[in-house]
Amino acid sequence: MPATPAWPPRSAPRLFVETALGGGVAVPVDGNGAHYLISVMRVREGDTVLLFDGQSGEWAATAEQVRKRDLVLRCVQQTKPAETVPDFWLCAAPIKKGRIDLVAEKACELGVAKLVPVLTERSVVDKVNLDRLHAHLVEAAEQCGRTALPELAPMIPLARLLADWPAERTLFFADELGGAPMRDAFTAAPGPAALLIGPEGGFTTAERDLIRAAPQARAISLGPRILRAETAAIAATACWMAANGDWTSCETK
Amino acid sequence: MPATPAWPPRSAPRLFVETALGGGVAVPVDGNGAHYLISVMRVREGDTVLLFDGQSGEWAATAEQVRKRDLVLRCVQQTKPAETVPDFWLCAAPIKKGRIDLVAEKACELGVAKLVPVLTERSVVDKVNLDRLHAHLVEAAEQCGRTALPELAPMIPLARLLADWPAERTLFFADELGGAPMRDAFTAAPGPAALLIGPEGGFTTAERDLIRAAPQARAISLGPRILRAETAAIAATACWMAANGDWTSCETK
Repeated sequence: MPATPAWPPRSAPRLFVETALGGGVAVPVDGNGAHYLISVMRVREGDTVLLFDGQSGEWAATAEQVRKRDLVLRCVQQTKPAETVPDFWLCAAPIKKGRIDLVAEKACELGVAKLVPVLTERSVVDKVNLDRLHAHLVEAAEQCGRTALPELAPMIPLARLLADWPAERTLFFADELGGAPMRDAFTAAPGPAALLIGPEGGFTTAERDLIRAAPQARAISLGPRILRAETAAIAATACWMAANGDWTSCETK
Repeated sequence: MPATPAWPPRSAPRLFVETALGGGVAVPVDGNGAHYLISVMRVREGDTVLLFDGQSGEWAATAEQVRKRDLVLRCVQQTKPAETVPDFWLCAAPIKKGRIDLVAEKACELGVAKLVPVLTERSVVDKVNLDRLHAHLVEAAEQCGRTALPELAPMIPLARLLADWPAERTLFFADELGGAPMRDAFTAAPGPAALLIGPEGGFTTAERDLIRAAPQARAISLGPRILRAETAAIAATACWMAANGDWTSCETK
C-alpha cells in the first residue's frame, strides 16, 4: 500500500493575511499576495496554501476561486498553534535602505519579538519607512515559518527610549569602549532583554553616558574587529538567541 | 597646551594593496583603489592613508604624487602588527549572487580565517565568481580593520571536502533533523573548527549521512525557525566567535 502523501505538502506556499483565520473561514486575497500565489507559485483550484494572520497560528487552506488577479482560500485545518517567540527586542538606529531592510529580515528570522527604530545623534538616516520594513518582516515570516510578525514600533529618540525603559528588561548595548564578552553577559542576565545598536558612526559620548546610567544597561563587546551596524545587530541577536532564547532545544523543523 | 592631534587620524582611509609593505616603501596605486582615494575620499598630497597587504600588518603611508587617476603612497610607520584571526573556516554552498556576497562580507567582518565554497547536490548555483567574492572580502577587510584577507578557496565538491577533512578540525554542521544547541556544541569542542552550511534546499539524505559519518562532524541546531542559508552561516559564525573565537576579550577598538 503506498504511503499517504504528507498533508499539507512541505512545498505549500505560505502567506501572511490580515483576515482573522479559523475553521471554514473564507479568505479573499488580491494584490501582491494574489500575484505571488497565482503567477509565481502557480496555485490552482484545490491546491493547499498555508496562512497565518499573526494571531491564530498557521492554517492550511484550499484555493477555491482562482481568477487572474485574485482568489479565495478556505481554511481547512490549523497546522500550528500561535507561536511564542523569546522576549527579546532589537532597538536599532536606522541605517541606509538596503542595510536596515536586512536587519528587519534577519530580526524576524532569528526570532526577535519587537523591532524598535531608535533615533540617535549620529544617525545619518533620520526617517524610517515603516511600510517597507513591515513588508520585509512579512516576507521573512512567510519564509521562516513564524506564525506572527515581530511588533514594529514607530521610531523613538534615544533619550525617550531610555526614560521609559521597563524596569525588568535588561538593555544590552555594544559599547565601542569595551564591555563584557557576550557569552558571560547573556548568561548572567536571563529574562526579558533588548539589544541596542547605534548607527554606523556609533553613539556620542553623551549618549553613551546616558545609556550607561540606565540601571538595566549592560555593556557588551563584539570583538576586536569593527562591525558594520547591521552586522552587529544580526551577530549579537544570534548570540543572545543561542544563549538565552529558544535555540537551545535539540529539534529543529 | 593643545593636545597633539592623534596620528594616524581616525578618519584615514584604509586600502588593501598587493605591494609588500615596509618602512619607506613606495606604493603606486591606480584603478579602483586610486578612484576610491582620490575621488571618493578626496586624498591630497601629504594626507595619511592606512595600507595593508595581507602579510605585513597595517602601515600609515603619506600620499606623495596625487594625479587624476593614480597616486603614490609612501609607508611611514607600522600601525598594527600582522593579525591572527581565530582558526575557523566557513564552508558554504554557493547561493544566489547578492546573498553569497553578503556571506563573504560578513565572514570577513566576523573574523573567519578561510572561506570555502562547497558544491552540493541541491546547489542551485553551481559556479562561484571568486574574483567578485575576493572584491567583497577586500572591501570588508578595509572597513573592519583586518590586516589580512580571509583565505578564499576554490569551490570543492562536498564528497571531496569530507574525504580530505583534517583530523584535528571539528566540523560543525547545521542539521535540519536536529543537533546539539550551539552553546553546548561549541563549548565542548574548542580548537580548530569549521562550519558547514548547505544550500537553500538543504543537504540530501545521502549527503547528510556522508557528513555524519565523518568522525569530526558535530550536528548543531539553529533553533525552531527556518533560517535562510546566509542567515544560518552568519548566525552560527557569530555564535562560534562569541563562544570560542576572539570575541571574549573585554576591549574592542
